[in-house]
Amino acid sequence: MTGKAFQDTYPEPLSHCYGCGSNNEHGHQIKTHWDGEESLTVFHPEPYHTAIPGFVYGGLIASLVDCHSTGTASAAMYRAEGREPDSPGPAYRFVTASLHVDYLKPTPLEGELTLRGQVKEISGRKVVITCQVYAGDVMTARGEVVAVQMPDSFLQGK
Amino acid sequence: MTGKAFQDTYPEPLSHCYGCGSNNEHGHQIKTHWDGEESLTVFHPEPYHTAIPGFVYGGLIASLVDCHSTGTASAAMYRAEGREPDSPGPAYRFVTASLHVDYLKPTPLEGELTLRGQVKEISGRKVVITCQVYAGDVMTARGEVVAVQMPDSFLQGK
Repeated sequence: MTGKAFQDTYPEPLSHCYGCGSNNEHGHQIKTHWDGEESLTVFHPEPYHTAIPGFVYGGLIASLVDCHSTGTASAAMYRAEGREPDSPGPAYRFVTASLHVDYLKPTPLEGELTLRGQVKEISGRKVVITCQVYAGDVMTARGEVVAVQMPDSFLQGK
Repeated sequence: MTGKAFQDTYPEPLSHCYGCGSNNEHGHQIKTHWDGEESLTVFHPEPYHTAIPGFVYGGLIASLVDCHSTGTASAAMYRAEGREPDSPGPAYRFVTASLHVDYLKPTPLEGELTLRGQVKEISGRKVVITCQVYAGDVMTARGEVVAVQMPDSFLQGK
């Protein structure tokens, strides 16, 4: 893994997301990094993040896929421009236009989850990210997120 | 709204879901009822369920769509058989095979959210639910969930 976590480079006023904001003390605070061409998030579910006892509830998986992917979209935009996220210039932060998750197998609650993401498409303000969720070596879910660059009005607080 | 909340009729060992289990003290404990042909959930987000300040984070919306829809799938199966959920006979509880959410507009954090669901298809052990999320009168997201009846092995604890 290389560099700062994507989420630690978000503009301060946009770092409050329950899923990924480093300023949300109640939230998941996921951290995503580049791992070569892929993005990588490692997350430890809490015992109460259960669906049926022993397995992770689907809403958490959807949340992780969502924030992992919008973070990857942001990082991909900087990378496409050959610059670092906290370098001078416009700040990129993405919102989700659509989220799709296929649940392939029950995801065990014990242990850590790994999410891997790939940049499928960058097209203007839109970035499409594909993503897989692993428990150990087993892929238990996969997702696709269409992320859209946040309106500039949201970024004025930077 | 009529009858018991769908989630209050789940078998006890299957009532621990973070999204909808009445036995998960940390969770959202959503409650879904029939409202005529549609299913209805009303939910009040917490102040920390934020994306950017003032708006609901997408992972919560995905979680609500997920649990609202699996609950509706279960209730639809009972209704198709003309019996009540807690009547003698097999218990129906569903897991999510796939979840799709389109985020149409930012969802305000203040106030309550309303989810409305429709049964699109019942086919063997599979039920497809469509769902819309409203803030006041404004539809801010819509979803579709493919729910599959839980394997019988999960139900043995009943």
